[in-house]
Amino acid sequence: MFKQCIVIICALVVSAVSPVMAYVSFSPDSQSFVVADKASGKVASIWVDSNASPGILLAAKNLQSDIYKVTGLTPVIVHDAQALSGQVIIIGERGAAAPVDRLFADGTLSIEENANQWEGYQLAHVQHPFDGVEQAWVISGFDRRGVIYGIYDLSEKMGVSPWYWWADVPVVQRDGVYITAGSQVSDAPKVKYRGIFLNDEAPALTNWTHEKFGGYNATFYRHVFELLLRSKANFLWPAMWNNAFADDDPQNMYLAHEMGIVMSTSHHEPMMRADKEWNRYGSGPWEYSTNPDKLYEFWVEGAKRYKDKDAIFTMGMRGQADTPMSEGENIGLLERIVADQREILAKHIDKPIDEIPQVWALYKEVQGFYERGMRVPDDVTLLWADDNFGNVRRLPTSDELGRQGGAGVYYHFDYVGGPRSYRWINTVPLGKVWEQMNLAWDYGADRIWITNVGDLKPMELPISFFLAQAWDPSAFDETSPASFTREWVRKQFNGQYTDEITRLLNTYTLHNGRRKPAAIAPDTYSVLNYNEASRISAELADAAALAEKIHADIDSAYRDSFFQLVGYPLWASQTMFELNHAQALNRLYAEQDRSTTNEMAAKVNGWFARDEQLRDAYHELRGGKWNHMMSQPHIGFVHWRNPPANLPPVVHTKALATPAVADMGVSVEGSRLYWPANEGQGKPLTLPTFTSFGESSRTVTVYNRQGKTFNWKAKTSHDWILVDKQGGALTAEEQVSVSIDWQKLPAGEHTGSVFVSGTGWGGASIDVVAVKPDLLQSPQPGDFIEGDGYIAANATSATILNGEAGEWRRVSLHGRTGAAMRTAVEPHALLDTGNAPALQFPLYFTSSGEFSLSLQLSPSLPFDAATGIQLAIALDDKLLGTVSLPEQSDKKAWEQGVLNNVKTLTSTLPVAKPGRYTLTVYGLTPGAVLQKVVVDTGDLKPSYLGPLERRYKL
Amino acid sequence: MFKQCIVIICALVVSAVSPVMAYVSFSPDSQSFVVADKASGKVASIWVDSNASPGILLAAKNLQSDIYKVTGLTPVIVHDAQALSGQVIIIGERGAAAPVDRLFADGTLSIEENANQWEGYQLAHVQHPFDGVEQAWVISGFDRRGVIYGIYDLSEKMGVSPWYWWADVPVVQRDGVYITAGSQVSDAPKVKYRGIFLNDEAPALTNWTHEKFGGYNATFYRHVFELLLRSKANFLWPAMWNNAFADDDPQNMYLAHEMGIVMSTSHHEPMMRADKEWNRYGSGPWEYSTNPDKLYEFWVEGAKRYKDKDAIFTMGMRGQADTPMSEGENIGLLERIVADQREILAKHIDKPIDEIPQVWALYKEVQGFYERGMRVPDDVTLLWADDNFGNVRRLPTSDELGRQGGAGVYYHFDYVGGPRSYRWINTVPLGKVWEQMNLAWDYGADRIWITNVGDLKPMELPISFFLAQAWDPSAFDETSPASFTREWVRKQFNGQYTDEITRLLNTYTLHNGRRKPAAIAPDTYSVLNYNEASRISAELADAAALAEKIHADIDSAYRDSFFQLVGYPLWASQTMFELNHAQALNRLYAEQDRSTTNEMAAKVNGWFARDEQLRDAYHELRGGKWNHMMSQPHIGFVHWRNPPANLPPVVHTKALATPAVADMGVSVEGSRLYWPANEGQGKPLTLPTFTSFGESSRTVTVYNRQGKTFNWKAKTSHDWILVDKQGGALTAEEQVSVSIDWQKLPAGEHTGSVFVSGTGWGGASIDVVAVKPDLLQSPQPGDFIEGDGYIAANATSATILNGEAGEWRRVSLHGRTGAAMRTAVEPHALLDTGNAPALQFPLYFTSSGEFSLSLQLSPSLPFDAATGIQLAIALDDKLLGTVSLPEQSDKKAWEQGVLNNVKTLTSTLPVAKPGRYTLTVYGLTPGAVLQKVVVDTGDLKPSYLGPLERRYKL
Repeated sequence: MFKQCIVIICALVVSAVSPVMAYVSFSPDSQSFVVADKASGKVASIWVDSNASPGILLAAKNLQSDIYKVTGLTPVIVHDAQALSGQVIIIGERGAAAPVDRLFADGTLSIEENANQWEGYQLAHVQHPFDGVEQAWVISGFDRRGVIYGIYDLSEKMGVSPWYWWADVPVVQRDGVYITAGSQVSDAPKVKYRGIFLNDEAPALTNWTHEKFGGYNATFYRHVFELLLRSKANFLWPAMWNNAFADDDPQNMYLAHEMGIVMSTSHHEPMMRADKEWNRYGSGPWEYSTNPDKLYEFWVEGAKRYKDKDAIFTMGMRGQADTPMSEGENIGLLERIVADQREILAKHIDKPIDEIPQVWALYKEVQGFYERGMRVPDDVTLLWADDNFGNVRRLPTSDELGRQGGAGVYYHFDYVGGPRSYRWINTVPLGKVWEQMNLAWDYGADRIWITNVGDLKPMELPISFFLAQAWDPSAFDETSPASFTREWVRKQFNGQYTDEITRLLNTYTLHNGRRKPAAIAPDTYSVLNYNEASRISAELADAAALAEKIHADIDSAYRDSFFQLVGYPLWASQTMFELNHAQALNRLYAEQDRSTTNEMAAKVNGWFARDEQLRDAYHELRGGKWNHMMSQPHIGFVHWRNPPANLPPVVHTKALATPAVADMGVSVEGSRLYWPANEGQGKPLTLPTFTSFGESSRTVTVYNRQGKTFNWKAKTSHDWILVDKQGGALTAEEQVSVSIDWQKLPAGEHTGSVFVSGTGWGGASIDVVAVKPDLLQSPQPGDFIEGDGYIAANATSATILNGEAGEWRRVSLHGRTGAAMRTAVEPHALLDTGNAPALQFPLYFTSSGEFSLSLQLSPSLPFDAATGIQLAIALDDKLLGTVSLPEQSDKKAWEQGVLNNVKTLTSTLPVAKPGRYTLTVYGLTPGAVLQKVVVDTGDLKPSYLGPLERRYKL
Repeated sequence: MFKQCIVIICALVVSAVSPVMAYVSFSPDSQSFVVADKASGKVASIWVDSNASPGILLAAKNLQSDIYKVTGLTPVIVHDAQALSGQVIIIGERGAAAPVDRLFADGTLSIEENANQWEGYQLAHVQHPFDGVEQAWVISGFDRRGVIYGIYDLSEKMGVSPWYWWADVPVVQRDGVYITAGSQVSDAPKVKYRGIFLNDEAPALTNWTHEKFGGYNATFYRHVFELLLRSKANFLWPAMWNNAFADDDPQNMYLAHEMGIVMSTSHHEPMMRADKEWNRYGSGPWEYSTNPDKLYEFWVEGAKRYKDKDAIFTMGMRGQADTPMSEGENIGLLERIVADQREILAKHIDKPIDEIPQVWALYKEVQGFYERGMRVPDDVTLLWADDNFGNVRRLPTSDELGRQGGAGVYYHFDYVGGPRSYRWINTVPLGKVWEQMNLAWDYGADRIWITNVGDLKPMELPISFFLAQAWDPSAFDETSPASFTREWVRKQFNGQYTDEITRLLNTYTLHNGRRKPAAIAPDTYSVLNYNEASRISAELADAAALAEKIHADIDSAYRDSFFQLVGYPLWASQTMFELNHAQALNRLYAEQDRSTTNEMAAKVNGWFARDEQLRDAYHELRGGKWNHMMSQPHIGFVHWRNPPANLPPVVHTKALATPAVADMGVSVEGSRLYWPANEGQGKPLTLPTFTSFGESSRTVTVYNRQGKTFNWKAKTSHDWILVDKQGGALTAEEQVSVSIDWQKLPAGEHTGSVFVSGTGWGGASIDVVAVKPDLLQSPQPGDFIEGDGYIAANATSATILNGEAGEWRRVSLHGRTGAAMRTAVEPHALLDTGNAPALQFPLYFTSSGEFSLSLQLSPSLPFDAATGIQLAIALDDKLLGTVSLPEQSDKKAWEQGVLNNVKTLTSTLPVAKPGRYTLTVYGLTPGAVLQKVVVDTGDLKPSYLGPLERRYKL
């Protein structure tokens, strides 16, 4: 399977995001099929059988309206096959639409392999198909959803986004819509059930739904179903927090069935009955050991009401409200439950049991039952789950590939639980989604792909991506996350600012992929080292400013859509970062007793208010269309659960003395100490050691602890120490940049000081240490060179040496550096260094010793117990051993991994003498995603991301 | 010397604070000498020779005015010895006052040994001394200061406090003043020079002096001199921060000389020239190696101007502005300096060089010169110094006792320098002053006692005590600090509220002796353990309330004096404590995200304002008489140096969400953790372990993190866990007291929990552990019993077993417990456990192990290098070894010692099995002061003072 897969990937790289040929054009051509032409007023008619499935009829009506939206012309829908004339869009399910069948029967059209399967469709331009008909655009399908997807394919190509309603994406007005002569297109999905799960849906989606529709009823679900169908999805787990799909509005299940949506109930709600229905109608405990009769009876109703509708029956049970079963690991009981549930299905549904779609969700502890030997009949689909944070826990083994029911994956874009819920804006980098779901595809989990989308709306981009990848995983490769995003932007914004908006989406998803907003704390990003927090702040500020500009400048029809899809998530992400950043500085400045403490306190309050303003602006869009939708509390987390509302943080303030006095403080980069308090603590103020290849300057901050202006002076102890300011008058603060005149220094370690005097007795003596190495061997351009006590390299900067049995490939939009390297290795393989792909890093050490090497990997789980996820490390020719990602059972490693979005594997590099070395990282198994390599040569400082890559340049 | 000393102490215990007989009465008696009698209008006349020393004449005039103040009658001052009649107060220096000499010559009076020496005086009631004179009260002196002290002795006995002007102590109006017939009194000082040092005198004293007197001139100094003389002192180091006594006002030195004050310049200002004079008149560097001629010339002027005045010449030199000499340890140079200085004295003063008083101050690094062998001529007094924090560094060795120049001590009540300046209110417990100065006396340092009093005024009580002890150290013993204080209170307040005011003084000096206000930080006293901070808070609040009541109720004439001497220092000490206490709680509550964080922030600001109000009230007393006097900044210390002004602290605040929400938090005694954050940190909430003999209850705080009322519930896991509240509605917070029903438990360790639920998912599970020991042996009443993982005992609670060669004695008003045990051992002795005094502590252990024993000792310095300060420790019969106070060179131990006011010596107690043991602490040397004993049996928590003593009661 894998080799075949590789071939497909190679073939389809360029068309990854548009697997179907672009057949629509907006400029006429004498041969074109005219869908509509404004100049001539010509518009094709739409033929559909009046007995067609209601979903097809509705899609045809939507096509009619879509054509009107694009052109202002309304096609006529005709049902009489005899009355066809002119340009006709002929729509029909093969075997149930006479004109269509005739064209296939008479050889005008021949069925393409691709279209001749589950949900397959074939679109074809036919000249003179019938008498009186000049041309036809034939939308045929293997089944009703195939037809519907064929219809919506045309809609989307005409410029009607699946998000036209859900994200107010404007429909571009055209002078005409044409289909290129001779076009023929066919397609069918590779994953059978593709869908989303509306979950964790209060307060945002719930309050919105209640305000706009009066509840989770069919009026509401019609919009959800249409979005799914336009996105070529077919599957839904409905909202269930305090809702019961089939019970809240009986129309819901009929509408779903008619429109073509396959319903199910979520992973812990068996037999098509919502958890909440038990509260309403059940009696006794939700405990099969003690209350089997009532539960049996409860489930019978589920089977009955869905017996003639598209549905997948969830089997087994968990505790109520998605908690573990109280019985613990009672496999025997659970097997009895499944057997009884199948008995119900067999009895009440008029199909062989192995043709009734059933799924067993191996979520959380349920996976443990399976691992300990519990089995369900072969026709039941095994739904493996991720760890709730987008890392798949388990995929089919080779032995499991042949199961009739196959396997699927339950994935998350939103989650309520530990170590930290994420329920608000989109935090999912597409590179990670692709990489993990691609593993699922590689390992044969292709029956169901479902993802938890929370309140739905904030997840527009990843929903589009997930469903597109699910349609044809083989068409997606490492480059797809980036190319899909760009294409998606191009489509939603009609080509306006495509590069810029793409960059904005990538910026905020990169940022949220580094750490989810709900998990950012004031101490997450270092305000002391590597300018980390200020660098992130600048990145986000640049993007936020660009977004402001585009928001102001873009065609006003697109402004609301831009706000929802780009502006809000970006600005809100920035706000969450800056709120924490301001808190960190407020705390640091308070500790350092800076007068600017109060400004930082004001910033904390300002960013809190900004968050509220952004939310309010969202809610006021389009006359309140999206009111409540961004009401998910996200400020004030202290443990896994979100706070009851957005809670203003604690701020630190200091009143200044009156009458004003002057009171100098001096702090240095990298330290929380300040003069004069450091004297009382008996601790020196020391700048981080200067090294030849490290940062060229360090900052000393001279500040006022009070309000009155004073004069200060900085003096250096040696002429090789340079300061960019010698002194002056100061009211708030001054940054003094200290650097080294390396020309004046011989090799070796040199010490000196900067003395800052101002108010008070004496002054701050700041130690300066500069180390100039003796370079016995010259570094080469591009070497990852030691400086400031570390070496750092991005994985994507390594030289790739692909092995016989696998490759290292660059995954776009993945990892905290924006792109990462993954091992493209045949499923289930465990390679050795002889045939494994290798990443090579040229390292240059200016010192020697036993140094700690850190490999930052994506926090993937060793989903294949047989191989784990393994790397081997070598320094020059010396193999140093293998490292593995931690076992799933290591809860602490897992929590840190999903919060930090890396897991760090460490090893020791024995560097006997300074000079050049080659570090090699071999990928021994599938599933490894390497982001960054850091070597601590003695002075690595704490930070969240680690220092930036540094390469030697001549 | 020591044995003699012991005898004297024993003899004089009851009269320690009034060494001179009380000869004044306010009720007439037919035999009495009538000083003044209002009913009859009779008033004695005062005879004094018109050629008497101006100081005597001035004192006689002051006596005249004092008699008027007391009685409203003004005695006539007569100079004609022939015109005497009636009742006469005859005043004169022996050998310079004819009537006096006649009485001694004719045998009417015989000179008492005591009075026939330096500054000795003799007071005697004589019937018909001369014709026409009915009675006389003869005030005679060995020298002029003897006479003056004799005069002021009468004034004080009449009820004129030395502090009548400096602290507005009212003079009580009397109907008459009489001297008991036959009274005869004589006295003379035991320490030759007794004085104070006005230092660190800006801003408070300086701004006050400038406002009231226009500077440090004779008008100002007249008040200082009078205070000294009325306090029977004779010596002054004048203000020198930006002042030069002899130069600022030429009258200063003449006035001093005339009034009888022996002047000197401070320890680092040689040759009677102020440091600041060098700035004004010197040229070139203050460096004898490079600028000897100018310095020599500069010093000649000092010798010249003081050649005929009482003065002690400071010899040697330090760097300018009291810094170490830049030459480092150049002994040769310093010896040359002293030789040259003596050459100047010999040349310009018409006395043998060995009769010119000279002093070499062995301050800071200068002591090092001495230790390394530098010597000065035998007639130069060696002035040893304390460590600036009241601990003497060095006292004469046996070999040094015979030196002609003798030795003295320079002591501190005020200091500018590390580890933390103390420049504001009185922080000196008298017990410590007594104990250290008594060592000086025991070791023969009796030539000069001088103490740095900062701005003078806040030090009224310790100045009185220091000068009284200096007058006659042999009359003071361990009980004197307490008895002196009470007597001093009685005198200043005329017997009103003597017990109460004494308690108030002892409360604030105990508190400030635990830690000086300037050194208190928010984390000093534990807000988590042993209710430490809240216990101190209650102590101070009680005292503050009593002081408020007395301030309101006391005779209004005393109100201002009460404010200055008692109210202000007490309330200000409380304010400094509470300011830090509120900061600690504000920080803790902010960390725990309590809604009451804001109330604590308001308290911080409130206490800051209270400090300002107190200061302003002080400054407004008596129409602004003491304006500026309390302007020393004392809030905002971060290192040794005081801040430029009182600086409002950083406060932590949190805005509450609007609209209001409810959000429960739960914290437990002893921990900074809170639920639910502890869940995110993976840390359990655990109450401190309950033990049978430990605290009977523990506190759980259930609080709101936001503003909306919610309902909460507490449930216990077992019936042996008791809570005093089961739940309720809560808006701010509730304290739940958890205790154990020990009856329900067998011996052993038991675990359970309290579960608190309110808002949010789940609730706080609080671990409860109770340990009930199996008592194989019964504890006895009075045993120091193990509980809560420790044993604690005050040294004063031990049983004393005095040895042959020394005693343990209880020193009043010493140490952090209010009284401490000192070793009264012969100077220079090093005892062994066979003859050493012992303190015995009956300990009862409920567990066994190797336990850490901590002995809290006063931070005395091992001033006698030959012996150090040593203790031996035994458990039952097993000698565990000796422990010693750290070497002076251990800077860190020293800094901690002077900040904490204890040094903790540790040892290990091997406790093989539970039960009763006797801990014995032997005092092997003089100078040990034991305050407290703590044994950590496994659960001792961090706190400042350690847990309170716990004894077993049946």
